[in-house]
Amino acid sequence: MTAPNQNYAKLNDSYLFYNISKKVAAYNSAHPDKHLYRLGIGDVSLPLPEVVIKALHEAVDDQAEKQTFHGYMPECGAPFLRKAIAAHYNKRGIHIEENEVFVSSGASDELGDILDLFDKRNTALIMEPAYPAYVDANIMAGRKIIRLPSGIENGFLPEPPQNTQADIIYICSPNNPTGAVFDREKLQKWVDFANKNGSVIIFDAAYEAFIEDSALPRSIFEIEGARTCAIEICSLSKTAGFTGTRLGYTIIPKELKRHNMSFNDMWVRNRTTKTNGVSYIIQKGAAAVFTPEGEEQIKANIGVYKNNAKMIMNALDKVGIWYTGGKNSPYVWMKVPDNFDSWGFFDYLLNEAGIIGTPGAGFGGCGEGFFRFSAFGDPEDTKEAAKRLTGLVYSD
Amino acid sequence: MTAPNQNYAKLNDSYLFYNISKKVAAYNSAHPDKHLYRLGIGDVSLPLPEVVIKALHEAVDDQAEKQTFHGYMPECGAPFLRKAIAAHYNKRGIHIEENEVFVSSGASDELGDILDLFDKRNTALIMEPAYPAYVDANIMAGRKIIRLPSGIENGFLPEPPQNTQADIIYICSPNNPTGAVFDREKLQKWVDFANKNGSVIIFDAAYEAFIEDSALPRSIFEIEGARTCAIEICSLSKTAGFTGTRLGYTIIPKELKRHNMSFNDMWVRNRTTKTNGVSYIIQKGAAAVFTPEGEEQIKANIGVYKNNAKMIMNALDKVGIWYTGGKNSPYVWMKVPDNFDSWGFFDYLLNEAGIIGTPGAGFGGCGEGFFRFSAFGDPEDTKEAAKRLTGLVYSD
Repeated sequence: MTAPNQNYAKLNDSYLFYNISKKVAAYNSAHPDKHLYRLGIGDVSLPLPEVVIKALHEAVDDQAEKQTFHGYMPECGAPFLRKAIAAHYNKRGIHIEENEVFVSSGASDELGDILDLFDKRNTALIMEPAYPAYVDANIMAGRKIIRLPSGIENGFLPEPPQNTQADIIYICSPNNPTGAVFDREKLQKWVDFANKNGSVIIFDAAYEAFIEDSALPRSIFEIEGARTCAIEICSLSKTAGFTGTRLGYTIIPKELKRHNMSFNDMWVRNRTTKTNGVSYIIQKGAAAVFTPEGEEQIKANIGVYKNNAKMIMNALDKVGIWYTGGKNSPYVWMKVPDNFDSWGFFDYLLNEAGIIGTPGAGFGGCGEGFFRFSAFGDPEDTKEAAKRLTGLVYSD
Repeated sequence: MTAPNQNYAKLNDSYLFYNISKKVAAYNSAHPDKHLYRLGIGDVSLPLPEVVIKALHEAVDDQAEKQTFHGYMPECGAPFLRKAIAAHYNKRGIHIEENEVFVSSGASDELGDILDLFDKRNTALIMEPAYPAYVDANIMAGRKIIRLPSGIENGFLPEPPQNTQADIIYICSPNNPTGAVFDREKLQKWVDFANKNGSVIIFDAAYEAFIEDSALPRSIFEIEGARTCAIEICSLSKTAGFTGTRLGYTIIPKELKRHNMSFNDMWVRNRTTKTNGVSYIIQKGAAAVFTPEGEEQIKANIGVYKNNAKMIMNALDKVGIWYTGGKNSPYVWMKVPDNFDSWGFFDYLLNEAGIIGTPGAGFGGCGEGFFRFSAFGDPEDTKEAAKRLTGLVYSD
């Protein structure tokens, strides 16, 4: 008899956003007239940049005429987009070849798919708190998870644990949910650790566009030695508002090999077997992001979100609450007042101020006692929410 | 040290289309003035239907305005599209619930991804010749492949092998590459076999829209008992010209369970962990296919391809060559003349008539001695190619 993948039975139910939506629905029906200030989910609120809209329309028109119609796309990405992405790295002084760039349907899709390249017996090291899919995707594959705690004491930026056999290492910087960003020195320690132990780092760079401090690395390939130990997974979701339009890209350097097998070669084989490429239309829209006009327009949108973050940070500063993130990240991660746990604080904010955030406990270990605000909300709503935050009482 | 997935080392190199392109390039540089008649690859040549283009433009416009902008889509598919697809089944008398429909980026993507639901120790039964990705995706997962031969003697429609423990069973009908189609009686035998043995059938219905004979099943869910043993994987690639636009859908009935685990529940968990849904824009374009106008327009396009198939079949009839497919399928699968092998026949057609087809040997076991023509080419080219086929000499 066919056996289902029994690892699925080991998964914990994922109730975070379900529970939030239940609580919000209950509040709405009790207070149908009250406006809610949504700083919870990490979804963008601004529409796609004009230059992307124009490119999408042109690509749709291409699909309407026999002479310009595009059928199957190259599985690893359209050459025009791989080239644009490589150039995007090259002009920042990071040498990436076009055939080290793989176009994907988004970072979340790629984070799941890429695990196929690794042996099932590999361990996965995950810094907590974490994006829940890192854990779940590895549980589905039957891997052992090594959980590395982080907290205020290390600014949510833990150091490599000595004497730990970590095969696959997840690093998300700027971090979701904490907004903490690794500096060069701290990231170098992880690269050195990975090279020494033969580990592979999966570097989730979905929020790199929010880094404004030029001393902070936006790509792991700014760090010496990363080409022999890292895969970088990127997304236009937060960079250019593609959460519902879907496009990401992944960098796998030619030098990344283990047991004489090249991860770049393996990924080509995986993509040519398991996909038929990403939509021509969406790839054309994505290419527009990397034009000078596109870069200007996304910078303006990111500026709006960064200003949202600033309003939240100012409010927390005013009331004297500890937080990290916000400056080089779209997330502000605050310590909840001592008399609350993170779900209790969720209820308090919702009921007292109509503000929706995300309880830290939903991000697994080390998340309890913290709370995440997203800067992707509506600016007017964020302004009012920030004002309300300063008017609340935070202790008994 | 990180170990790569060692199963990748067991894969054979996939040279079929690479070898074809090398031979074509060599021919082109030797005869730069000669036109080639491309009946090789299974890619469509007609542009997207008008109604789809209109819907795509509207969806792009939605993404340009804050009020109509769509961020993250539900991971299992937009409700409007799941509903349209369920209705598409329901009006043919097949009861499918909306939450049994999963929207995908395409059948090839889904055929790779869905294997995550199965235990690695399951065997995969593959009827040969076959779409090469069936074999390769299972080799990547370390599964044992059971190869079931087919040939002229059974019309390339083999019966279930008694005393074989087949856990995952691939059925592609209309078949790629052979164009053969299972009738109800033959498909019922497979469904009964799967239910008796606890196997799960992965039914690849990518070419169902080409079935014109109403006695033939277009969905495995027309067969009694299929809801407890089958997953159906569908695509708009060939139905509506979406090869480069990308959209597919998958049906997983609620009754499909093994060891008390529901494949529908597991797939929900997989999608919510490993994707963030399919592009809003593309899903809107896809929904237009299921409108009355859309159905009219795709019927017209399919009619063009079916006429191409008819021209190829007529030519083969004229010269007395055995073939299958063509009538309810976009592929015509011919026996190559005795004095050729399939690559030899490829060279002969290319050099003597400028016609490009696909050697059967490229589809694995049982493919040698056969040759595939695709009906997706340009109608004028197909007409001329058919004419040229009748003028060739097929024996010493």
